[in-house]
Amino acid sequence: MRKIAILGIGQTKIDEHWDLSMREIGGNAAFAAMQDAGMEKVDSLFVGNMLSSTINGQSQLGTFFSDWIGLWGQEAVKVEAACASGAAALRSGLMAVASGDIDSALVVGVEKMTDKAGHDVTSALATAADADYELEQGISFVGLNALVMRRYMHEFGWNHEDFAPFSINAHANAMHNPFARLHQTIDVETFENSSTVSTPINLLDASPTGDGAAAVIIVPAEKIAAMNGRPRITVAGSASATDSIAVHSRKDPLFLSAAYQSSKKAFEMAGVTKDDIDVFELHDAFSIMAALSLEACGYAEKGKGVSLGLDNEILIDGRIPVCTRGGLKARGHPVGATGIYQIVEVAQQLRGECGETQVDGAKIGMAQNIGGSGATILTHILKAE
Amino acid sequence: MRKIAILGIGQTKIDEHWDLSMREIGGNAAFAAMQDAGMEKVDSLFVGNMLSSTINGQSQLGTFFSDWIGLWGQEAVKVEAACASGAAALRSGLMAVASGDIDSALVVGVEKMTDKAGHDVTSALATAADADYELEQGISFVGLNALVMRRYMHEFGWNHEDFAPFSINAHANAMHNPFARLHQTIDVETFENSSTVSTPINLLDASPTGDGAAAVIIVPAEKIAAMNGRPRITVAGSASATDSIAVHSRKDPLFLSAAYQSSKKAFEMAGVTKDDIDVFELHDAFSIMAALSLEACGYAEKGKGVSLGLDNEILIDGRIPVCTRGGLKARGHPVGATGIYQIVEVAQQLRGECGETQVDGAKIGMAQNIGGSGATILTHILKAE
Repeated sequence: MRKIAILGIGQTKIDEHWDLSMREIGGNAAFAAMQDAGMEKVDSLFVGNMLSSTINGQSQLGTFFSDWIGLWGQEAVKVEAACASGAAALRSGLMAVASGDIDSALVVGVEKMTDKAGHDVTSALATAADADYELEQGISFVGLNALVMRRYMHEFGWNHEDFAPFSINAHANAMHNPFARLHQTIDVETFENSSTVSTPINLLDASPTGDGAAAVIIVPAEKIAAMNGRPRITVAGSASATDSIAVHSRKDPLFLSAAYQSSKKAFEMAGVTKDDIDVFELHDAFSIMAALSLEACGYAEKGKGVSLGLDNEILIDGRIPVCTRGGLKARGHPVGATGIYQIVEVAQQLRGECGETQVDGAKIGMAQNIGGSGATILTHILKAE
Repeated sequence: MRKIAILGIGQTKIDEHWDLSMREIGGNAAFAAMQDAGMEKVDSLFVGNMLSSTINGQSQLGTFFSDWIGLWGQEAVKVEAACASGAAALRSGLMAVASGDIDSALVVGVEKMTDKAGHDVTSALATAADADYELEQGISFVGLNALVMRRYMHEFGWNHEDFAPFSINAHANAMHNPFARLHQTIDVETFENSSTVSTPINLLDASPTGDGAAAVIIVPAEKIAAMNGRPRITVAGSASATDSIAVHSRKDPLFLSAAYQSSKKAFEMAGVTKDDIDVFELHDAFSIMAALSLEACGYAEKGKGVSLGLDNEILIDGRIPVCTRGGLKARGHPVGATGIYQIVEVAQQLRGECGETQVDGAKIGMAQNIGGSGATILTHILKAE
């Protein structure tokens, strides 16, 4: 595949934006990326979004945003893969530019979740699960993840507090990210004492939703030699894989086979191994998913993902730093936007723009975005050149 | 862009399928295309769908269908551009295969619209319009098209009955298409006497919705020399363009600029002119859209599209045969599936499989799929080689 570079990045603070519409939020991220890239015109627009039809009463988000941003006439489309919509939109944009039919693409991940009451959002999020065979039983999306976490604890003998380091690390890193939803440190005691959402998942195992958007501009790498003195960031690996949509259909509900497959393909494409990854923005929608993701990508044996947290290997100076800007847990999880936030954050690390949470000498970074309870998983690897 | 061929096609009858789920309908079209292509495994799946999140409570349709079809592990994604979702999914699939990162793609357009009450469907369809600046006024999607039709009649002096030939032709052709939703001929009298939907649009100006799915399998053209004795169908042209999402924002609401732009690009890419097109599957969601589409593609001067119908130029043996399998008007309009039905039908014409409505010696065919009231328009040109 033709080599692609990330020329510009942009993001908005994740929050409850009562004074901003979805249009403005997505537009602000897009304009930031265009300004960062020094481009006023882009050939095409790919929008990653999950909930606009249900929550915002708006379909056709590609054209909705090309109109607002001023890309009149240009090709535009929405891509959806539940919470992996952001990375799925990036991958569609990458393949479009790689095809040679398009010279540049703006990829925007956007979600405006606070326009409806909480129970409406819970119902809309549940559409990521299997409507016929999971939701018909009355289970929510958090409930499905809770079943997986309980099984993991039972199977491998971990206690709830063993998951604390994932959330503590995410909250600590988010303190230095002005775009993060939450700015408060936590410890094991606050983690253990937070309210239950769906046993064993409590409030501090779960990522907060919110309104937010992030954007990147991609172009063929050969078109840019240097990038205003900054390192050139290329997409070295890109892969997507799927599993059954219902958790109960999986041979092993504790193994994220789509994470294994997509990371394997991305490693091969990039010509690297897991040990070459300097920073890993993983999809910690729930603390259990952080553990499963690390295991599937080869950083821990099955059932041992939790120990990476307990052994401080996930910290900024650890073996495999994760959630360096706060992760889903503290940066926030505006679902369809998350995959692009992860890409923006990896790019920031490779540019060396992360201040207090900068990973020293980061040259290769990975982002992994998960749709449903592991049903659609995309892995991207970026390199600084 | 790398040349792509359509190796297999499949479709289901459009109807109110009370005994079939969305899963089964989409699966049936996919299996038909795989059987037609003689393939048991495909690298990737692109699903075009507009309404599943709102009507069927199901997101993540890419993985939903890869799971059901048995493409476990393979890449899968949903693409949405309102009623142009089908063609948008095809274009994403085309660019993916053209990028070289994927060797084959199954593209499924699917919609299951009868699971909810009519007013829910009307609301869901309205999300194709601008929620903030059109729907807030209380207008429906049909209402927007009615304003456009009334303006056209006023501006150019046509009467309502002048639009009759579009619907009469579509109904006549659908009589010979076993997959069509409606099998009944109509005449000017029935056209004029049908119930009003939103003045001046009546029931026979408007296409019926329904449950249905269509599918195609695409591969790099160089991989197949001959296709079981059938002509090789290649995608010679593919283009997408956008306009403002709200009708009132357009400089001229009676000019489909996105149809003009996407057809122009597609003609150039295919190396043909409008006069080389033997068959044109256009997007007659409402009769007014047939007229505007013909004008934007250069088949009639502005304000004269209606005369193509009155002069019998749109018939099977006319200058530019349209809706040869019934069009949206009589084959039916399961919105996200429509764009793929059009591609399947053009392929059938180029294969010479259309019996009574076969266009003699058809070698080049065009399909145009419209999202919203002209906001997103994709044009594809197929060639038989």
